[in-house]
Amino acid sequence: MSDLKYKILARVKKDLEDIEVALEQNLNPHLDLVSQIAGHILFSGGKRLRPLLMVLSARICGYDAGYDKVFSTIFEYLHAATLLHDDLVDEATLRRGKPVANSIWGNPIAVLVGDFLLARSLAIAAETKRPDLIKVVSNITENMSQGEIHQLMRKGHLDLTEAEYMEIIERKTAVLFRGTCRSGALIADVPLKKVIALSDYGFNLGMAFQMVDDLLDYSSDTDVLGKEVGADLKEGKLTLPVIYSLESAVPKDRALMENIIRSRNFSINDFKILIKMIDKYGGRTYTQNLAADYVRHAKEGLGVFNNTETKETLLMIADYTLSRKF
Amino acid sequence: MSDLKYKILARVKKDLEDIEVALEQNLNPHLDLVSQIAGHILFSGGKRLRPLLMVLSARICGYDAGYDKVFSTIFEYLHAATLLHDDLVDEATLRRGKPVANSIWGNPIAVLVGDFLLARSLAIAAETKRPDLIKVVSNITENMSQGEIHQLMRKGHLDLTEAEYMEIIERKTAVLFRGTCRSGALIADVPLKKVIALSDYGFNLGMAFQMVDDLLDYSSDTDVLGKEVGADLKEGKLTLPVIYSLESAVPKDRALMENIIRSRNFSINDFKILIKMIDKYGGRTYTQNLAADYVRHAKEGLGVFNNTETKETLLMIADYTLSRKF
Repeated sequence: MSDLKYKILARVKKDLEDIEVALEQNLNPHLDLVSQIAGHILFSGGKRLRPLLMVLSARICGYDAGYDKVFSTIFEYLHAATLLHDDLVDEATLRRGKPVANSIWGNPIAVLVGDFLLARSLAIAAETKRPDLIKVVSNITENMSQGEIHQLMRKGHLDLTEAEYMEIIERKTAVLFRGTCRSGALIADVPLKKVIALSDYGFNLGMAFQMVDDLLDYSSDTDVLGKEVGADLKEGKLTLPVIYSLESAVPKDRALMENIIRSRNFSINDFKILIKMIDKYGGRTYTQNLAADYVRHAKEGLGVFNNTETKETLLMIADYTLSRKF
Repeated sequence: MSDLKYKILARVKKDLEDIEVALEQNLNPHLDLVSQIAGHILFSGGKRLRPLLMVLSARICGYDAGYDKVFSTIFEYLHAATLLHDDLVDEATLRRGKPVANSIWGNPIAVLVGDFLLARSLAIAAETKRPDLIKVVSNITENMSQGEIHQLMRKGHLDLTEAEYMEIIERKTAVLFRGTCRSGALIADVPLKKVIALSDYGFNLGMAFQMVDDLLDYSSDTDVLGKEVGADLKEGKLTLPVIYSLESAVPKDRALMENIIRSRNFSINDFKILIKMIDKYGGRTYTQNLAADYVRHAKEGLGVFNNTETKETLLMIADYTLSRKF
């Protein structure tokens, strides 16, 4: 475990424990099977980054009314719901090292339990009695579903542009990060300036987070990552490292890369050749640098806040996003 | 067209037109494909019964602030979302005489467009700025997903009881009808007594509506119904007419019925034998009578309101629910 990760975890240990309890207490299903399947996706070693960001955002705004942990479950339930639906979309087999829910219980049940989790997150949002926060939650879901559809429509298309990629990850990931941080500020009733500052922090962090996530698909191994390496590409999902290198490659190299990508069930050896090509044109470095830019913007966003321990933690989380290995 | 249906349509013609416009204007998708698929399910001859019930419920409570049509779309979008997800669950091929969306665009897209419609309904609910109404909407979704899961878990089980059936249709259908009528009362800011009266009306109407819907599977033909006759049973979905008759049948008849149901891909002839058995034990009459009881309760619920044209229309809709043929 990296030093930075250790430091962050030491600071938020109590918060993570409280979030864990809140996730168990607020699930509230009527059927045992729902509890079992929702539990399969919810309690399988998730990082709890989204609820944690809401709790810290509320805290940096001076919130102390005690409902932050309960409300933070909104964003983990929402996240888990989209994972259930995405696994079906992606035809993935592993998630966090475990078989995906739809491969165990079938597509229909996975879809319906996802709907239930979506409804739970909405019900808890309604309990805040804040239409502005509820609007944030519905906006996240609208964006995520459309981001996923956009990605799905362009699956296997080798002409996906960097601009399209950016739009997709904004909708798929950054809007949720923005929403969780914004909601933390909203429940604290701070002036708009601080709401916007935290929204910007969340948005930029989310963009960086997704880019690094996409990079990991080219750098980690299956055991560490909990899913297959090269899985994105095997599904025809092009991400920035490969998009950038494809755009810059000379025709011969581009053809070589395209052949490997098109074959889908490429060998480890082919994949190594592909990575060599990506690195020849700087696709990974470019992605890492762009992610670093977003992290810099995320941190700048917090400039309006006084220096506190909470602010320091949020800054550390931003830095860690860049260096994480899984 | 029955005389009653003609009378109702003449009264609500303008409302239905306004609802249609609102459904087009509030969909608001970012991608053409989403608009196309959502349109496939939304604009294929739906009855618009759910939004209409909200509009009439608001009107009987004296609401005149002009947002009833917009807010009524919440319940049609929600309904369309669940249809998209249910068609995947049910493995149906036809819906309202058209191929189901997932058979044209595939499961993943159908799931994601369903998510988008769910999010739209939530976003519009948020625009009401009423946490009580938003809670109604989330409660509907929680119930519907769990009702569908319950039904799915018990698919093909010939020991499904009447009590279980009632619980399933309550969650699957009646909670949505209750919610749409309740929401009409909520936006009108009437005393709790009227909110409860309309909730009861909606709930009882929904129960009757589903029972009649289940009856139609045994009595209509494919052309009128827009889906296959006997489709429920072919999927292993037992409904009240057959549950009641199975429970009352002597062992020999029960075995005969069970054999036909178990074979799933039964012939038209087998299906006719089954209907003969159902009628021998009064399964259809029992269901029709129970639905009539619920309609009576629905109408009684409106006793707290003065006699107006709107009240008359709601009473007519209740009566029509019993006599509808598709």
